[in-house]
Amino acid sequence: MKSYLRVTFTYMVFGVLWILASDRLVELVAGDLQDLAYFQTLKGITFVLLSALLICILTRRALHKLKEQQEEKDAVFRKTVEGSHHILLNYLNNMQLVTMEAEECPGFKRETLKLAHEASAKAEVELKRLDAVTTITAEQIDSTIYHDLRRPKS
Amino acid sequence: MKSYLRVTFTYMVFGVLWILASDRLVELVAGDLQDLAYFQTLKGITFVLLSALLICILTRRALHKLKEQQEEKDAVFRKTVEGSHHILLNYLNNMQLVTMEAEECPGFKRETLKLAHEASAKAEVELKRLDAVTTITAEQIDSTIYHDLRRPKS
Repeated sequence: MKSYLRVTFTYMVFGVLWILASDRLVELVAGDLQDLAYFQTLKGITFVLLSALLICILTRRALHKLKEQQEEKDAVFRKTVEGSHHILLNYLNNMQLVTMEAEECPGFKRETLKLAHEASAKAEVELKRLDAVTTITAEQIDSTIYHDLRRPKS
Repeated sequence: MKSYLRVTFTYMVFGVLWILASDRLVELVAGDLQDLAYFQTLKGITFVLLSALLICILTRRALHKLKEQQEEKDAVFRKTVEGSHHILLNYLNNMQLVTMEAEECPGFKRETLKLAHEASAKAEVELKRLDAVTTITAEQIDSTIYHDLRRPKS
């Protein structure tokens, strides 16, 4: 059974049993109409306060779980970006060796070298832009990644 | 005021008012002790059922919000990995030009070229491993990224 149905059902069963049992008790104790009315009101208010306490606990717990999940979402995002940084930086470091050797190689075209440097810089800028996302939603990340593609042509 | 306190407080106020008002009404209507007891029990059960309905709605809503948040977390992860793929593939494509030219350049060391190919392959494998994470938690992502570093030495 789903958790919210279990909670509701348990409350309902205990609530109805409580009403039946306590009503019977009040009937036994109360001597007259006024007595019965007085005990019933006292009993009713007690029941409302206890139910309110239950509602308070349930809704507070739900709020905490939701906050935990939001924090986990943010942590997942940060870790994923960190992981991407890690992968890219490893790769950049290796490619640095290639460009260094290309620079020393006489026949190597300077414009290709320039392109390599630009590509490295671009990759780092793009990762930094991803890292700087503050509103962590899929939409926000999407528009950050495809920033260049979706920017209106000027 | 926090949302869960507002819900609890509203329930408490309406609950107490309902008890006071309905008790007064039952007193007016009921002719004798038996009548009063009967109406009170009916009233009590009605109140429990209505409270149960409220609890059902509140807990169901909380569960739905939690699910939405979990889905958002997964979507954020997928989008971030997709973004990293995008950044890395752009970079890989550009570096392909560099390695292609290096291959044609007579003085370029073959071992550096081999290193470049290995680095590209490694970056792609690492991203694929990140993409294949099924239990999306910060810990799981962390252990996937630093897989090589934390693997016990054999």
